[in-house]
Amino acid sequence: MIVKSQIKLIRSLHQKKYRNENGLFFVEGLKAVQELLDSRFEVVKVYATEDGGLSASAGEVELISEAELKKISALRTPNKVLGLFKIPKVEKIDFDDWVVTVDDVRDPGNLGTIIRLCDWFGIRHLVCSGQTVDCYNPKTLQATMGSIARVNVGYTDLALFLQKADRPIYGAFMDGVPVYGEKLAEPGILVMGNEANGISSPIEHLVTHKISIPQFGEPTAESLNVATATAILLSEIRRG
Amino acid sequence: MIVKSQIKLIRSLHQKKYRNENGLFFVEGLKAVQELLDSRFEVVKVYATEDGGLSASAGEVELISEAELKKISALRTPNKVLGLFKIPKVEKIDFDDWVVTVDDVRDPGNLGTIIRLCDWFGIRHLVCSGQTVDCYNPKTLQATMGSIARVNVGYTDLALFLQKADRPIYGAFMDGVPVYGEKLAEPGILVMGNEANGISSPIEHLVTHKISIPQFGEPTAESLNVATATAILLSEIRRG
Repeated sequence: MIVKSQIKLIRSLHQKKYRNENGLFFVEGLKAVQELLDSRFEVVKVYATEDGGLSASAGEVELISEAELKKISALRTPNKVLGLFKIPKVEKIDFDDWVVTVDDVRDPGNLGTIIRLCDWFGIRHLVCSGQTVDCYNPKTLQATMGSIARVNVGYTDLALFLQKADRPIYGAFMDGVPVYGEKLAEPGILVMGNEANGISSPIEHLVTHKISIPQFGEPTAESLNVATATAILLSEIRRG
Repeated sequence: MIVKSQIKLIRSLHQKKYRNENGLFFVEGLKAVQELLDSRFEVVKVYATEDGGLSASAGEVELISEAELKKISALRTPNKVLGLFKIPKVEKIDFDDWVVTVDDVRDPGNLGTIIRLCDWFGIRHLVCSGQTVDCYNPKTLQATMGSIARVNVGYTDLALFLQKADRPIYGAFMDGVPVYGEKLAEPGILVMGNEANGISSPIEHLVTHKISIPQFGEPTAESLNVATATAILLSEIRRG
């Protein structure tokens, strides 16, 4: 059973404003919920339609009906488990390794994919400009596939952050130097831009190394999507 | 003005069955429609809410109202132009360069992104297993961003196709050898697998080189999405 006030609260968390006001967010699906339970994230409650092998404390799990889950879920086809968690404090950034930053990425699927890529490539810190889509947006979380548990995502004034950072700053531009010839051995900061407009001009001025992914097809080809470009650049950073 | 029978026809083309029966598909948005007009694709009719700079023959373009466009569009927010085209014949495959194949990719966004990646990296031929999502699905086309104009996409019995191909066959597996150490100079065939299950076992038997993208994060990280993995492998193939 889930009480009405709780249904109202969780439904409000579909919106960023109420996530921030309450300091809470939710994630759906057994795998993602379990990964957050096993992480630094603090659980408030797990709602499940069946006791399907979650390893959580007894008091944390509440069995609910499918109809109840449907009321609180953000999915068309709710996925058995919904976990309610506290939004964690952003950890201090450690510049010993590469840091990824995004300048106004607006599509939740793209941001989620970038978080999942950071996880795969062992990037601990992702810094987002204030206009970037919320990482606790249900669609973003769906695309992270649980990777939010292992990537420290923060929002800040990106220009200020980059000004203070005493590191080489690499930005992806159509007219940058081909990344394949770049030495990426020293930890730096990678900046990825907005889907439609790329990196904004205040941020462009702070970039110390403009790089690009060479194109091999006809010059009419649409530029790469920000998530696939991030995949290639993180692979370049790690391949050595 | 658009007549009722035409509205009915275009609406039916939202479904694969009717696309195949009629040999027709539609694409939306000025850029994508223009790219198909400039390609080997044969146009039937372009419906536009305004004469917004399309370069097409006068007889090809029909001005319609926004309400009419809404009736035929697959988008929540229709995008001014919808072009009706004939499904082209699949071109004969030229093995002088790399060929990409997909084994049951089901998500239209993923297939569209893979087509866009082939375009960027100059891969001319994409061969799909019979169970792969249709490349003329409106959602797939939306994700290709017009790249369908330059990539030859065909559907076939993938096992049979690979059996006949006298080329090295590279497949992406979690336990393959790290791709960063592979020499990919000779044109081969790249196989990418299904989102949930990877490459199916009949296809796995035909793969001559199992490769993988090394993981650098914690071993719990979710495997890479098929589109981002394709991005990295095509970049590896082209970077030399």
